[in-house]
Amino acid sequence: MVQAETPAADARRIGAAVQASQTFASDLFDQLRRDGLDDPGVSRDTYGPGEQRAHATCAKVAETMGLTIERDPAANLYMTQPGLDAREKRIIVGSHLDSVPHGGNFDGAAGVVAGLVALQALQRLGVTPKRDLTVMGIRAEESIWFQVSYIGSRAALGTLPDGSLEARRIDTGRTLAEHMADCGGDPARLIPGQRYLDPQRLHAFVELHIEQAPSLIEAGCSVGIGTGIPGNFRYPNASIEGSNDHVGLPRRFRRDAALAGAEFAMALDALWQEYEARGIPMACTIGRFHTDPKQHGLTIVPGAFHFSLDVRAYDETVLAELDQRVDAIIAGIEQRRGVRFHTGSKARAAVGPVDDGIKAALSRGAAALGIRTIDLGSPASHDAAAFAACGVKMGLIFVRNANGSHNAFESMTIEDFLDGTAVLTEWLVMQSI
Amino acid sequence: MVQAETPAADARRIGAAVQASQTFASDLFDQLRRDGLDDPGVSRDTYGPGEQRAHATCAKVAETMGLTIERDPAANLYMTQPGLDAREKRIIVGSHLDSVPHGGNFDGAAGVVAGLVALQALQRLGVTPKRDLTVMGIRAEESIWFQVSYIGSRAALGTLPDGSLEARRIDTGRTLAEHMADCGGDPARLIPGQRYLDPQRLHAFVELHIEQAPSLIEAGCSVGIGTGIPGNFRYPNASIEGSNDHVGLPRRFRRDAALAGAEFAMALDALWQEYEARGIPMACTIGRFHTDPKQHGLTIVPGAFHFSLDVRAYDETVLAELDQRVDAIIAGIEQRRGVRFHTGSKARAAVGPVDDGIKAALSRGAAALGIRTIDLGSPASHDAAAFAACGVKMGLIFVRNANGSHNAFESMTIEDFLDGTAVLTEWLVMQSI
Repeated sequence: MVQAETPAADARRIGAAVQASQTFASDLFDQLRRDGLDDPGVSRDTYGPGEQRAHATCAKVAETMGLTIERDPAANLYMTQPGLDAREKRIIVGSHLDSVPHGGNFDGAAGVVAGLVALQALQRLGVTPKRDLTVMGIRAEESIWFQVSYIGSRAALGTLPDGSLEARRIDTGRTLAEHMADCGGDPARLIPGQRYLDPQRLHAFVELHIEQAPSLIEAGCSVGIGTGIPGNFRYPNASIEGSNDHVGLPRRFRRDAALAGAEFAMALDALWQEYEARGIPMACTIGRFHTDPKQHGLTIVPGAFHFSLDVRAYDETVLAELDQRVDAIIAGIEQRRGVRFHTGSKARAAVGPVDDGIKAALSRGAAALGIRTIDLGSPASHDAAAFAACGVKMGLIFVRNANGSHNAFESMTIEDFLDGTAVLTEWLVMQSI
Repeated sequence: MVQAETPAADARRIGAAVQASQTFASDLFDQLRRDGLDDPGVSRDTYGPGEQRAHATCAKVAETMGLTIERDPAANLYMTQPGLDAREKRIIVGSHLDSVPHGGNFDGAAGVVAGLVALQALQRLGVTPKRDLTVMGIRAEESIWFQVSYIGSRAALGTLPDGSLEARRIDTGRTLAEHMADCGGDPARLIPGQRYLDPQRLHAFVELHIEQAPSLIEAGCSVGIGTGIPGNFRYPNASIEGSNDHVGLPRRFRRDAALAGAEFAMALDALWQEYEARGIPMACTIGRFHTDPKQHGLTIVPGAFHFSLDVRAYDETVLAELDQRVDAIIAGIEQRRGVRFHTGSKARAAVGPVDDGIKAALSRGAAALGIRTIDLGSPASHDAAAFAACGVKMGLIFVRNANGSHNAFESMTIEDFLDGTAVLTEWLVMQSI
């Protein structure tokens, strides 16, 4: 990794070149918003029409810029500024182009737009890189659709778990393979051991993403430098079996599945508080949490309850410990309330460590550009973790964003976006000359 | 109220006359089950085809028995054995003929079948009553459909709350007035101050119903004599407003509506335990308890949560106290979790006291018949409470039943049913001669 500092004059030129792309960036965000509009917010459905339109828009812009366009069997999009030396390993930057239903315009897409702005800035600066610089528009990062993590990036790297192609999209009920084929992919080529990207041939993967919490707002910084991506374990489709009974049933006879769910949620909330107090970062989220709409009612004691669970932490040992704690909580509730938990399939994602050298280089670059940053653990999952899991050196840049993400109200200013993109561009320049 | 004891020989004759109707009762239950079959269980939807078929079946049987058939503007069914003296006040026995979706065959219908069996037994005994004895097939007791309590009985008594006719059935979205008209009712005649039944002209109302808890199983008795019906307050459509956020949002920033719901449910469970410990009977049930199916997902912190609440007790002072406690619980959670509760419309039902004289007479009759009983507070609501609220003397007979009610597995033996019906018949004989 290059350790040199960018001279102040060069930093100013890089900053100005990025600033000059402000209208380009705004126009591209506006087009992506129109492509995905699904009031409230945008819906870029994974391997569906919404994501597909975002891919088409980005590919069209990349063509206009003279970049090379490629697609892999999973229909990921690669937009490349070719380098001078074919022996040099390539750099990939980028993020995902899908969104949750009625999500915001920036979660994912900002990383792809940042990559295109950075390459435009390099063109403006007259830098011809020594190595290939690729902006990757990644498929299917939002696991809400198929309940599988990092589909696009892991398909490219040959690490998609067995059976993923048979996962069904929660709204359409159709398989990942079917949806992928609809979007120009070739799922038959996604066989174990086959990969499109060879980790040995990658110099690094860097992802710019909006922050999904208000830590940068609290800190008063436009940009955060990522320190790591949490691993997780998940129960996407868990349920609790109790007994459907009449509202008049005395307490001692009840086997209320919803109360069991409530006790479970409160126990996990207490677990999180305990870890916070110990200074160990983690998070747990029960996203779906509901009685059975076919059976529930005002005068019925709920006999069935359904939930999803996501538990995440930055340390595999902590994750294993949390896994045991969740099992113990479940066993206690089963005994106390006469109910039975069915946790269903369990999904896991490994912890994604950030490369120390890249982290240091991004921080130095930001300082040279006069952009104040803080170090920031990513509470959310990102495709970058799939690259790190294959041994690719990985870095993360977060951009300040109001109102969180996965909702229609996420809010990033173009100024903050260009700050983050300048940090990315400076790093690309330093790795390319 | 007649205080005389039934001589042992007469009690034996009454018991035998009821036993002789075993096949009649079994056949009628079987026909009602076929009428309502909706695997699992039966669905006799309020003012819909399911309830309508049950009414038609009972009316047909009553005609065969030579009873007079009448219907009121709410399409309640009255099947009457005319009495000798028109000046005597009439007795009504009966229950409702609707059910919850996928409910059991006995909840409600058992009270109507018991009335018909009792009148058949009187015919068999050669008793011509001095007063009209009416079996009432009541409409729309199950508040799950329109979220209004005691629709049929209160319509007959002229005490249906304003606006009830505009209530919409939760599945069809159509109004009570529309559904009622479909079933031969005349909702335009249900105007305030108008009533079909004059409480002054009613001697008493007695309802036989399956027990909806296993207290009689615990006690080893086939029959329970009711001591009262709880009043309640309800929030049929309450919700909690938080903030939809990304799974990565740190704990301190979250406004998780589902966790607020979980805390609410656990607080009510603790409240119930506290009252149990103090020996004050009550119940609270959160029947619907769910995240928003349009928005929830594995990776989204729930920003909206929905629930229904039913709180019941046998004492108006206790109910008022519980109402305040619930408000305080809500205020605390709102403050702690940054969420807002929207409790929506509030429904109330008054406590339904059982008449001491009827209770004593039913107990004496059971003793004369050699049927061991216990006194039993009804944890559930019943139409009898609507009669009691109008000053009509009211009594309740419960029949042992396994597996609770409001589910497909309720289970009453024909022997236990005939025990309860014998108690009803003995009382009718004593009030009629």
